[in-house]
Amino acid sequence: MAISAIKPDATDFLIASKQCEIQDLTSFLKLGQLVVAISNLIHALQRERGASNLFLGSGGQRFSDELEGISQASDDQLNGFYAALAQAREALGSDHGSSRLLSRIASALHGLSGIETLRAQVLRQEISADAATRIYIELIRVLLSVVFEAADTAADPGIAKVLVAMFNLMHGKELAGQERAAGSVGFAGRQFARALQERMTHLLEAQERCFELFCEFADEQSLALYQRCLEKPYQEPIRYLRGVARSNSNQALIRDEHTCQWFELMSSRIDDLKVVEEALEAHLHHLCAIKFAEARQALSQHEVLIRDLQKHEPHDAFVVMLSKDELAGEYEIASLANEGLSPRLGRSVLELVQNQSARLQQMNDELAEARQALEERKLLGRAKALLMKQKQMSEDEAHRLLTRIAMNEGKRLGEVAKAVISMAEMWQ
Amino acid sequence: MAISAIKPDATDFLIASKQCEIQDLTSFLKLGQLVVAISNLIHALQRERGASNLFLGSGGQRFSDELEGISQASDDQLNGFYAALAQAREALGSDHGSSRLLSRIASALHGLSGIETLRAQVLRQEISADAATRIYIELIRVLLSVVFEAADTAADPGIAKVLVAMFNLMHGKELAGQERAAGSVGFAGRQFARALQERMTHLLEAQERCFELFCEFADEQSLALYQRCLEKPYQEPIRYLRGVARSNSNQALIRDEHTCQWFELMSSRIDDLKVVEEALEAHLHHLCAIKFAEARQALSQHEVLIRDLQKHEPHDAFVVMLSKDELAGEYEIASLANEGLSPRLGRSVLELVQNQSARLQQMNDELAEARQALEERKLLGRAKALLMKQKQMSEDEAHRLLTRIAMNEGKRLGEVAKAVISMAEMWQ
Repeated sequence: MAISAIKPDATDFLIASKQCEIQDLTSFLKLGQLVVAISNLIHALQRERGASNLFLGSGGQRFSDELEGISQASDDQLNGFYAALAQAREALGSDHGSSRLLSRIASALHGLSGIETLRAQVLRQEISADAATRIYIELIRVLLSVVFEAADTAADPGIAKVLVAMFNLMHGKELAGQERAAGSVGFAGRQFARALQERMTHLLEAQERCFELFCEFADEQSLALYQRCLEKPYQEPIRYLRGVARSNSNQALIRDEHTCQWFELMSSRIDDLKVVEEALEAHLHHLCAIKFAEARQALSQHEVLIRDLQKHEPHDAFVVMLSKDELAGEYEIASLANEGLSPRLGRSVLELVQNQSARLQQMNDELAEARQALEERKLLGRAKALLMKQKQMSEDEAHRLLTRIAMNEGKRLGEVAKAVISMAEMWQ
Repeated sequence: MAISAIKPDATDFLIASKQCEIQDLTSFLKLGQLVVAISNLIHALQRERGASNLFLGSGGQRFSDELEGISQASDDQLNGFYAALAQAREALGSDHGSSRLLSRIASALHGLSGIETLRAQVLRQEISADAATRIYIELIRVLLSVVFEAADTAADPGIAKVLVAMFNLMHGKELAGQERAAGSVGFAGRQFARALQERMTHLLEAQERCFELFCEFADEQSLALYQRCLEKPYQEPIRYLRGVARSNSNQALIRDEHTCQWFELMSSRIDDLKVVEEALEAHLHHLCAIKFAEARQALSQHEVLIRDLQKHEPHDAFVVMLSKDELAGEYEIASLANEGLSPRLGRSVLELVQNQSARLQQMNDELAEARQALEERKLLGRAKALLMKQKQMSEDEAHRLLTRIAMNEGKRLGEVAKAVISMAEMWQ
C-alpha cells in the first residue's frame, strides 16, 4: 500500500470544522459590541441632528447653549465606536467574506471624519438646516449599513436572527426620528404641503415594515418590551397628529401647541425604542456568550472522544460507511456488519462526522430564513434605485409605486421588487 | 475636541477590505487544486468501481490481473488528494464559514480510510458486486459534496460560476458512470426489468439537468469542447441502446454484442467528459491566478493613492460626503462644494470607498445568481429526502414525482421542491 506519510485524518478535519465555528462566534462576540457602540452613536447623532436643526431653524436663537454639550455626548459615543472598532478589527481582518463589511466601515469612518467641519459650519450658520439634516441622515444611514452587513455575515442562525431584528429596530427608530423632523417642519410652518404629506406617509409605512420584521425575529423579552410601547399613552395623540398632517384641511386643524406636542410625543416614543434596542443588545451579547460556551464544550467533548477512539483501535479497522439519510434506506450500516466487519470505531467517528454535517445543514436552513429578510431589503433598494434612475422618480414615489403594485397584485414587496429589476434589465 | 488616540482611519479599513478579498482568492487558488485532485481521484475510483464490479460479477474470472494496477492508480490519485488537502488545510482553517466544507472533508477522509478494507473484501470475494458498487458510489458522492461546498464558499462570482459548472460536470459524469453500470447489468442479463428501466431514465434525466447547469456556467472553451462531444459518433448508437433499454420489448431487442458495445460507447463518452473537466480545471486555475494578480495590483494602487492623499492634505480637511446613488439625486456633491468647502481630498477617498462598495455589491449580485443553482439543488435534495421518509418512496420515485409535478404545473423544479418542503413542514 503506497499511501505516503502526509495522509490527513478525518478527525483533524472534524475538529477543524468545530474550531472554525468557534472562531466565527468569537468574531461575533466582538461584532456584537460594535453593534452596541453603533446603536449608541446613532442615538447621540439623532439628538445632535435635532438640536442642530432647531438651532439653524431658529436663526441661532434656540439650543445655542445646549449644542456643545450635545456634541460632546456624541464624541463620547464616537470614542466608544472607535474603541469597539479597534477590538473588532483583528477578528474581522481574517474573515472570509468580510470585505463588504470592512468596506462599509471605511465609508462610515470617512463620513464621521467630516463631523468637526460640519459642526463648525452649523455654529457659524454657514449651512442650511435642511442640508445639515441631510448630512446627519446620510451619516446614520452609513452606520446602519454596517449593522446590515454584520447581520449578513453571521454564520450562526440564532445570531443572524437577532442581528436582523436589531437592524430593523434601529432602522425603524431612525425613520421615526425622520418622521419627527418632517412633522416638526409641518407643524411649525402650520401646513403640510402635498410633498411633505407624502414623505410622512412613506416614513410611517417604512417604519411599519421595519417593526414587522423586528417582531418576526426578536427574542421574547425584547418583543414584550416593544409591545408595551404600543400601549403607551403617547400612541393615541401621535395617531391624532398624524391624521391632522394627512388631512386635506390640515391648515385649518393645526394648533400652536401641536409643534411642541408632536416633538415631545415622538421623542418619548423614540426613547422607548432605544430601551427596546438595549434589551435586544443584552440578548445578543448573552446569546453570543452562550453559543461560544456551547461550542467550546462541544469541541472539548469531541477531542476527548476522538482521543479515546484513537487509543482503542488501530487505524486500518476503519470501514467505509454509508450515510443512511442520503440513500433510500435500502443499505443500512448493519448490512456491512453482517458482512463480517467490526464497525465499532468506524461507526463512532461516522456518527460524529454525520452529526456535525447534519447540525451545519440545519443551521444553514435556519440561516436562509433570516437572510431572506435581508435579501428582500436589498432587492427593494435596487428596485427603488432603478425606478429613481430610469423613471426620474423620488425615493418616496418609487417606494409608493412598489407598495401599490404589491397591494394590488397581492404579492410580497420582495417579489414585486424582483420583477421590477428583471424588467429593468430587459429595458437596458 | 475629545477624540482619543485610538481613532481608526477610513483608509485602513478600505485596504483591509481589499486584503480580505486577496485572502479569499488565495484560499481559492488552493481550493482549485483540491478540486483538480478530487476530479482525478473520482475518475480513478470510477475505473476501480467498474473493474471491481466486473471482477465480482464474473466470480473472480475477469479483471483479476488488472485490479491491482487499477487500485495502484487510485492510490496515486489518493496521494495527490492528500497532498492538495495538506496545502489547502491552512487556507481553510481560518476562513469564516468554512466549517461545512471542513466537515465534508472529514466525511470524505473517513470514507476513504476504509478503502483498503473494501479492496481486501473484493479480492477475497467476500462482498457482493452490488454492495461494493454502492460503497464506491457513496465514496464518490462524498467527494462530490466537497466540491459542492467549495462552490458554495466562493466569494468571487467568477470563481463561483466555474465551480458550479465544475460540480455539475463532475456530477453529470458520475451519473453517466452509474448509467453505464446500470445498462451493463441489463444488457448482460438480457433484460431490463421495470425498476432497472426507471433507474436508467432517472440517471439520464439527472445527467441532463447537470449538463444544462454546466452549460449555463461554463467558460466558452470548455463549452465548445463539450459541444464537440455531442457530435461524436458514439452519441447515435448510445441513443439507440437507451431506446432498446426503455422499450417494452427489450428482451426481444437485446443482442449479444450490446453488452460490450454499451460499455465501450459509454466509456468513450465518459473519457471525453473527463477531457472537458480538465479544460474547465485549467480555466479555473487560470481564473484564480488572474483574479489574484488583479486584486494584488488594485491593492498596491490603492496603497499608493492613499499614501499620496495623506501626504498632501491634513486630516481635518475631510468633509462628509453623500453617496449620490442612494439619494434621489437631489443632493449632489457639488452642492457641498458650493457651500464653501473644498472637497478635493474628501472626494478622492470617497470615490475609492464608493468604488469598492459598488464593486462588492455588483459581485454580490452576480454571486447570488451562481448560488441559486446550488440552492435549487439543496432544495431538491431536501424535498426528495422528505418524500423518501414520509411517503416511503425510493430516491428515483421521489425524483420522478417532483419532475412530473414541475412539468404539469409548468414550474421550475426548485419551486416545486420548495412547495413540497413547506407542505411537509405543515404535516409534521
